[in-house]
Amino acid sequence: MGDTIKQLAVLGSTGSIGQQTLDVVRALPHRFRIMGLAAGKNITLLSKQVSEFKPRFVCYQDKKIPAHLLGEGRELLPPEDIACHPQVDIVVIATSGKSGLSPTLAAVKAGKTVALANKESLVMAGEIITKEAKRNRAQILPIDSEHSAIWQCLRGETKKAVKLILTASGGPFHGYSSTQLEGVTAEQALKHPSWQMGKKVTIDSATLMNKGLEVIEARWLFNVPFDNIKVIIHPQSIIHSMVEFIDGSTKAQLSYPDMRLPIQYALSYPERLPNTQLPRLNWHTINNLTFEPPDLDTFPCLKLAIEAGKKGGTYPAVLCAADEVAVDLFLSQGIKFTDIANLVEQTLEQHQSIACPTLEEIMAADDWARQKVLELIGVNPC
Amino acid sequence: MGDTIKQLAVLGSTGSIGQQTLDVVRALPHRFRIMGLAAGKNITLLSKQVSEFKPRFVCYQDKKIPAHLLGEGRELLPPEDIACHPQVDIVVIATSGKSGLSPTLAAVKAGKTVALANKESLVMAGEIITKEAKRNRAQILPIDSEHSAIWQCLRGETKKAVKLILTASGGPFHGYSSTQLEGVTAEQALKHPSWQMGKKVTIDSATLMNKGLEVIEARWLFNVPFDNIKVIIHPQSIIHSMVEFIDGSTKAQLSYPDMRLPIQYALSYPERLPNTQLPRLNWHTINNLTFEPPDLDTFPCLKLAIEAGKKGGTYPAVLCAADEVAVDLFLSQGIKFTDIANLVEQTLEQHQSIACPTLEEIMAADDWARQKVLELIGVNPC
Repeated sequence: MGDTIKQLAVLGSTGSIGQQTLDVVRALPHRFRIMGLAAGKNITLLSKQVSEFKPRFVCYQDKKIPAHLLGEGRELLPPEDIACHPQVDIVVIATSGKSGLSPTLAAVKAGKTVALANKESLVMAGEIITKEAKRNRAQILPIDSEHSAIWQCLRGETKKAVKLILTASGGPFHGYSSTQLEGVTAEQALKHPSWQMGKKVTIDSATLMNKGLEVIEARWLFNVPFDNIKVIIHPQSIIHSMVEFIDGSTKAQLSYPDMRLPIQYALSYPERLPNTQLPRLNWHTINNLTFEPPDLDTFPCLKLAIEAGKKGGTYPAVLCAADEVAVDLFLSQGIKFTDIANLVEQTLEQHQSIACPTLEEIMAADDWARQKVLELIGVNPC
Repeated sequence: MGDTIKQLAVLGSTGSIGQQTLDVVRALPHRFRIMGLAAGKNITLLSKQVSEFKPRFVCYQDKKIPAHLLGEGRELLPPEDIACHPQVDIVVIATSGKSGLSPTLAAVKAGKTVALANKESLVMAGEIITKEAKRNRAQILPIDSEHSAIWQCLRGETKKAVKLILTASGGPFHGYSSTQLEGVTAEQALKHPSWQMGKKVTIDSATLMNKGLEVIEARWLFNVPFDNIKVIIHPQSIIHSMVEFIDGSTKAQLSYPDMRLPIQYALSYPERLPNTQLPRLNWHTINNLTFEPPDLDTFPCLKLAIEAGKKGGTYPAVLCAADEVAVDLFLSQGIKFTDIANLVEQTLEQHQSIACPTLEEIMAADDWARQKVLELIGVNPC
């Protein structure tokens, strides 16, 4: 074919984005080769993936990796080492939560192309990561559908965006009152109307925290001030985001909700590759696209996130950590859905932020926030 | 400022697009200079424009141009000579009807950048014009909102579009039945719900002929086969058109309906320039964008145009000419609105097309069609 083959490492390969990344590689085997796979706890799926893609490097959280996975010259490496290995061209950061931060930083320091699905890396340490990326000429390519949409709209444009308009489906509780929200269950919250995603991001979508994290991420990815990043509710999830330019023209990117498209776009960039498995919009069945402002009183997480982003310092790290623990408590301990926002808000209120924090200070703020949430609900963290 | 000043000739300066082109120049006087103005019959407005913009060259249809307009070293030149003058960088073809063809051809032969609002040039002689443009490295930049939208979406993309989706407002009679259409008046037809335009294009919007001409134009501008150019009705006129790419991703360009934006985009390309006079979308008031397939039985002009485009030869020229005469008869002689489509259809049926026609053969087909329409309604053309 004459086409170059890009060598990928997929960190978080057994999660939703990881699996869909491997779907894209499966559909385009002459363009991508899997060099590394890293997973958390799902050894069964990781084993299957290793058998199929035969990576050079593997990583498994428990480190008690079964011997058969290490045959055929395969090496066991920590995710940070996979992320900066000379044989890896693109590092897909598909983990959720703060575990994405350290390999992301390792990859940008090594000047790699990073296809970033993990929100927390940029939210917690946007300044550090973007500075390191610039210094080492590493490219950070977004995999989130919203940021991919913005990036596609900016393609070929010579001037910066004047305004970013991030769309949000509104989640399963769109239109609910605060009172109605009090009683919702984890089962209800996990039923997202338009996207199939991991549990954490699905709950974050239901609280609108996810959109808030995306606003902070967009600020770092596209260097646009917070006041010029707007969120609108668009329940059909067809327009994935929009960009307004200096002349008043707006561009939008559209598709059915399917994460394989933004994943493939990042992996194949600057090319677009044909993939018949990706659905095409059918304008005979799309009759109506609707838009409305978000309800910040009923869904305060969006407001909390934007405020934390604007304040900067260690506030965004505290936001992430408090949310991660609160979501976990909602899913496993049955705290109320509305308590997620309450716990995040109280944690932020009690935090003493540090301006221009180092990575160590960010990690310390993260630890502090996790303990604070447990303390707030009366669990002794020790 | 250090910015280059582009020297423009505006052919059709007193028409709707011509006036809006001068509005853009007025807003950005440090970027554009008017070198030539050509008008048809509106000498009063042309005089004002000449006083304000002080062009080097003028053209007036009657050739009895008042002496005072020719003072200050000003020359009277035919539009073809203005279009290829060495002091002109960009030729704006803002005339309607077949009068745009000859100066467009002159401009592309001279390797000029042509900002094209005239639909008939490409519809009648798309093959000749695009070949000459390629041979002489002339750029043809679209000014129509739909084609500008497609062009903006294609910006920076390395692969051709897979599908173009042209949006249409549907015009003032959107939703009418054939019976209702029989009785509509010229006054009703001239009230377009979203766009302020010249009379001919407003009637063409009401019959959907305008969209058919745009499909043919799109085929030449973007080299996409007719079967991959779709039309959908979008009454709000916010999405101006869309492009689907090989990976299934779709991009759209949006704005309130205001022709100054596509005009400015073409004039300033590849830059985007700030212009506070151009409106910005307000997503707090845009709640709903709707889409539906066009009703080809009630509005047959769209189907007639696409068929003529597909058949090629001299059919598109006959389509244009028959429509121009039929619209004129509707406005001045009170033939029925539905007779526009009937006359165009009958004229096309009776035409003996010539494959790969020369410019002379195209002009002869145009003459033949004009006479045929008059003959069909019983007017003796001699």
